[in-house]
Amino acid sequence: MLTLNTYTQLYRDALLNDVIPFWQTHSIDRQAGGFFTCLDQKGNVYDTDKFIWLQARQVWTFSMLYNRVSDTSPEQSSDWLAVAKHGASFLKKHGRADDGSWYFSLTRDGRPLVQPYNIFSDCFATMAFGQLSVATGNDEYAHIAQSTFEQILRRRDNPKGKWNKAIAATRPLKNFALPMILCNLSLEIEHLLDRQLVDQTIDECIHEVMNVFYDPDLGLIRENVTPDGQFSDSYEGRLLNPGHAIEAMWFIMDLATRRNDQALLEKAVRITLATLDYAWDTKYGGLFYFMDSQGHPTQQLEWDQKLWWVHVETLVTVLKGYQKTGNQACWDWFERLHTYTWQHFPDPAHGEWYGYLNRRGEVFLPLKGGKWKGCFHVPRGLYQCWQTLKSLDLNQSATTDRPEGDLHGYFSSPPAS
Amino acid sequence: MLTLNTYTQLYRDALLNDVIPFWQTHSIDRQAGGFFTCLDQKGNVYDTDKFIWLQARQVWTFSMLYNRVSDTSPEQSSDWLAVAKHGASFLKKHGRADDGSWYFSLTRDGRPLVQPYNIFSDCFATMAFGQLSVATGNDEYAHIAQSTFEQILRRRDNPKGKWNKAIAATRPLKNFALPMILCNLSLEIEHLLDRQLVDQTIDECIHEVMNVFYDPDLGLIRENVTPDGQFSDSYEGRLLNPGHAIEAMWFIMDLATRRNDQALLEKAVRITLATLDYAWDTKYGGLFYFMDSQGHPTQQLEWDQKLWWVHVETLVTVLKGYQKTGNQACWDWFERLHTYTWQHFPDPAHGEWYGYLNRRGEVFLPLKGGKWKGCFHVPRGLYQCWQTLKSLDLNQSATTDRPEGDLHGYFSSPPAS
Repeated sequence: MLTLNTYTQLYRDALLNDVIPFWQTHSIDRQAGGFFTCLDQKGNVYDTDKFIWLQARQVWTFSMLYNRVSDTSPEQSSDWLAVAKHGASFLKKHGRADDGSWYFSLTRDGRPLVQPYNIFSDCFATMAFGQLSVATGNDEYAHIAQSTFEQILRRRDNPKGKWNKAIAATRPLKNFALPMILCNLSLEIEHLLDRQLVDQTIDECIHEVMNVFYDPDLGLIRENVTPDGQFSDSYEGRLLNPGHAIEAMWFIMDLATRRNDQALLEKAVRITLATLDYAWDTKYGGLFYFMDSQGHPTQQLEWDQKLWWVHVETLVTVLKGYQKTGNQACWDWFERLHTYTWQHFPDPAHGEWYGYLNRRGEVFLPLKGGKWKGCFHVPRGLYQCWQTLKSLDLNQSATTDRPEGDLHGYFSSPPAS
Repeated sequence: MLTLNTYTQLYRDALLNDVIPFWQTHSIDRQAGGFFTCLDQKGNVYDTDKFIWLQARQVWTFSMLYNRVSDTSPEQSSDWLAVAKHGASFLKKHGRADDGSWYFSLTRDGRPLVQPYNIFSDCFATMAFGQLSVATGNDEYAHIAQSTFEQILRRRDNPKGKWNKAIAATRPLKNFALPMILCNLSLEIEHLLDRQLVDQTIDECIHEVMNVFYDPDLGLIRENVTPDGQFSDSYEGRLLNPGHAIEAMWFIMDLATRRNDQALLEKAVRITLATLDYAWDTKYGGLFYFMDSQGHPTQQLEWDQKLWWVHVETLVTVLKGYQKTGNQACWDWFERLHTYTWQHFPDPAHGEWYGYLNRRGEVFLPLKGGKWKGCFHVPRGLYQCWQTLKSLDLNQSATTDRPEGDLHGYFSSPPAS
């Protein structure tokens, strides 16, 4: 068992001395602008396409570090801001279609490859320009974030628009991802929004996540439900995405903390623990990627794989759950997940983390970045864990003389928060 | 080592005594019409959606058996035709949109769920009604096959139509699947087409498959190429789908036999053997599902899985290659593939075959049918292997007194064909 202080250092060092330098070294396209994200084990570029999700997420990550990490050198901080601006400049120039919506992908030099069918491109662009506007005070960045957010709200009831292949009249379903991300997004750009819009969006998102998509009989969050929140006995309706549900729980915990809503916090912890019990692979360890709520075969051939983001996001959630409620089960899960994650994902030889493990925990795609993995979940998760661990550590130091090693004894009842 | 006669019996019995009865027992929806295809390990229905690909493929399979299998009872034969007509009736009533194109999927009772975005729904509908028109002489079936085929030809240059999310002007690519399937389709409904259209379609398909998608430097068939047949250094352009390429080679062998084109046969065998060398998993056995021609990570998380159809289609191809050219390497591959396939895919406990194995050959989705696996590749492959083995067996019996067990000695040089 590590001490709180050792955990804190580990997450901090991995973020600042491994992961962020990896992307600074390998991902910046100094010739055409923007970022390479398809990086092999050693960081070599194997594909030059530019995916808006990942371009925007990297802008967000570097802006966030600039905005929030203070214990660093001015040079490092200024380098982070330069990386963020480098990505933003490419996005601003090439990322949008005529109607202001964001393409899904571009060629290396910024020509559009895939139509703006995917509303999450817009979500991540909003996050990117929101954080960067905080960092710079630049009105243009603020305007891009704001207008993109408004467009997302307009599109939210029919996010796929004309690219939707489902005939909604036959089996109307709504998907969990958008309300989940809006929970987070409304806080990300709170400084740019009318207070009432923020509160209203948050109210709606909490309701959607915790009442509509949460199935009380099942005790879990469903990935798709009918418009009135009922179960649909179909592939989509039976689908569970445990990592998604658990990631959403730390967004909810942040909102609950902001509202000082202890009942909401406790509910988020309960859902987290139920999801962990359901999705933990008791044979090989790790969390499954997709499951079927009736135990039927999933459509997804990747259902039993162990993905980096699922594990990183879960570490964040259980630490926050522990910090905010003192629930010992959260801490126990943190230690179990920490052990699994650090034994399987990081690559000490070449830096950064692998993303894709098979059920046994073996790497089956030896990439550090690709079409979906970029500079986002690992650094955001490391940052969040670092901060939570630091606050637990400070709290412990301030309130007890016990040795740091005696964590279990100390935290077995809720700390006074 | 088994004798030719034993192999022949094995493939015949698996088809007639296991696989076909499994679908007759479990898949027929006597209440709403059409077929259930989502069947678990024991044949229980776990989802009732109806996918046009699989509805049509099952109609084709039962029509084909009726048309081609003569050593059976009149009752069995008449049952097969009844199953085919049962599926056709559902398809005819519910399968098409107003413009005559085929939906992708329907609810159990036939209401459209997913738009007709997928041209392969039309391809398999053409096959289904083509075979059924041979079985019945029914003009309505013939007309459906013919008009659908004409529609495919009209759509072939832009098969995804308005549902295409790629911006073709930036990186135009064409995909291997359609020309590959047209090779087969034009023969399937030859009896309904103008001779000139058949010959022209076959000419174009052979050219596309063997010259345009075949990359002579690589020695393999690419899944996507530029409009003029060049390599595109992108995820799509680097993609190899070994099972697809090898399946196409038996379509080409059939066309080459029809045209008495020995050079084309030899080329198809060469490509088959090169693909097998490239895609065989030397560590765990079996053929990979997807690969990258430069050895980079694929987009497809399922790349290292072992799929039933890949192995069944490859058995057909290597047997035909051996039958038509006598190439010993084809026979050696047949034995290796036969051993792997029969050790891993069939389920003697509950019948039929598993579809989805992980890299190690372990079942990770214990289904017999789903959204993509239905009554098609296994029975078609078993039928094709059975017929090829039978003809090899007859050929052997007619031309030698050697004992059947001595296959290797007998077939080490090309048989006089």
